[in-house]
This record gives sequence, C-alpha cells and structure tokens, in this order.
Amino acid sequence: MNQLSQTVKVLLVLAATGGIAWGAFAKPDDAIAYRKAVMQVIGKHFGEMADMVKGSQPYAQDAFQKDARIVALMAALPWEASLVPGSYDGGGTTLKEDALRDREGFMAAAREFEAASQDLLTAAQGGDQGTIKSTFGATAKSCSRCHKTYRK
Amino acid sequence: MNQLSQTVKVLLVLAATGGIAWGAFAKPDDAIAYRKAVMQVIGKHFGEMADMVKGSQPYAQDAFQKDARIVALMAALPWEASLVPGSYDGGGTTLKEDALRDREGFMAAAREFEAASQDLLTAAQGGDQGTIKSTFGATAKSCSRCHKTYRK
Repeated sequence: MNQLSQTVKVLLVLAATGGIAWGAFAKPDDAIAYRKAVMQVIGKHFGEMADMVKGSQPYAQDAFQKDARIVALMAALPWEASLVPGSYDGGGTTLKEDALRDREGFMAAAREFEAASQDLLTAAQGGDQGTIKSTFGATAKSCSRCHKTYRK
Repeated sequence: MNQLSQTVKVLLVLAATGGIAWGAFAKPDDAIAYRKAVMQVIGKHFGEMADMVKGSQPYAQDAFQKDARIVALMAALPWEASLVPGSYDGGGTTLKEDALRDREGFMAAAREFEAASQDLLTAAQGGDQGTIKSTFGATAKSCSRCHKTYRK
C-alpha cells in the first residue's frame, strides 16, 4: 500500500470516530461549531491576559506572549464561518444575522480586532507594561464593540 | 478613569455577556470545553489539509500552509486541559481517565503529535509534494495512535 492510500485509510478511521470535520462548512451547524470553538479558545487566552493585566494573576512574560501569539493567529479565523447563510439559529449561536446583512460593517469590525490583536502581540514582544496595558485595552474594546452590534 | 480601570470595566462587560473564560480551568467543565474547542479547530484545519492530500480539493499552497501553521501552533494547547482531575465525564468528553492515570504515556503521545505537526509545517513551507504527503500521513497516524489509546 503506498503512502497516500495509507494516509487515506488513517483519515477514514479518524473521520468515522468523529475526529475530523470534513470540507468547508458543508452545513450551517459546522460553521456554528467551528466559530464557537475558535471564540472559546480566543476567550480563554484573552482571559489569561486579562488576569495578568488586572493583576489578579502575576504577570509572566512567556505566558503573556504565548497568549498574545495564539489570539493574534486565531483572530482571522472566525469570519468565514460567520458569513454562512442559515447559520444564525440553533447550535447555541449568539451571532445575529446582521453579520451577513451588514457584511461590510461586520468585516470592518473584524479587521479592527485583527489589527488590535496584532498590536497587542507586538506590545507583548516588546515587554513595555504601559504599551501592553493600552493595547490590551484597545483590543478588549474592539471585542466588545463587535459583540454589542452583532451578538444577541 | 485611567486606562487600566477602563480595561477592567470593558472586561467585566465581556465576562458578564459570556465572552471570556476566566482563570485556568477553575472547573473540570471549563477544561473539557476548552480542549474540545481546540480539537475542533485542529480537526477542521487538519481536515482541509486531508482534502488536499487526498485530491478531493485542489492543492493550494497558501491554504495548506495556513492550515499547517494553525495545527502546529495549536498542537501544544490541549494537554494541560486534558490532565484536570474530574474532567473525564460529562460535557460530551470522549477522553478516558487513562490520560491522567498514565500521564507519562499520554504526554509522550502528545509530544509525538506536536513534533509531527511541526514536521508537517516545515514540509508545507518547503512545498515538496512527496514530503508533504509523508509528513501528513505521519501526523495523521500520531492522531489516531493517541485517540485509540486515550479516547472512549
């Protein structure tokens, strides 16, 4: 058996046991599950940074940089899945269909978050506490601005 | 209001509306939700690469590299959350408590996946199709080996 067909066999086993989501949002529920998962992971790492910014956890440069790296990389991920027709009900989604109706406004808000999270990563790598706090605050505001408009 | 207290205010608003998970797995359910979310995102991007390796989707270098970058970065994320006592029932988890009981074996399997996904990223950046296919196959096998042992 060549390498490729061996790979396919392994993948079929994984798929059969639920390990892999196939295709690019074949169903609206897949889009909901994916964007919720991305937001869950972003939220966790953003929350860890928040604890350090607030001082409820001691600031740890390595951990903060790791959190910032994850958030900056993942910031671009939720949007395609947020613009899938039919994905605004069910599956516990809190996204309003306004995202799809006002695609331009939604994507502008999304890009604002992406840019802010990139600034936060740059600040985290620089290590200056004042810059970290202000860029963190700006990123948090970009989250809440978008949530306020497009979240139920 | 200074920048920091403004930030805290924004965060409290976000937390109140469910946007952020606070602390490092305060409850077993938080650990379950986090690791499931990470696996969901990894699965999606691994699945996209699988489609290209199988040929059911045309190979697109940029997309493949992006998928490989996401998987390589996220490969280290699920393990801390997988070793939280009391997180082996409920919340739809499929992880066996064997992960905690056999922590050393579990982490060895985890590290194997991390190394394989790093090799896959290197191959994706290199662009050689044979290397991409073989490293993809090795990564898929590292997934299924771990799932076979530690997943219900």
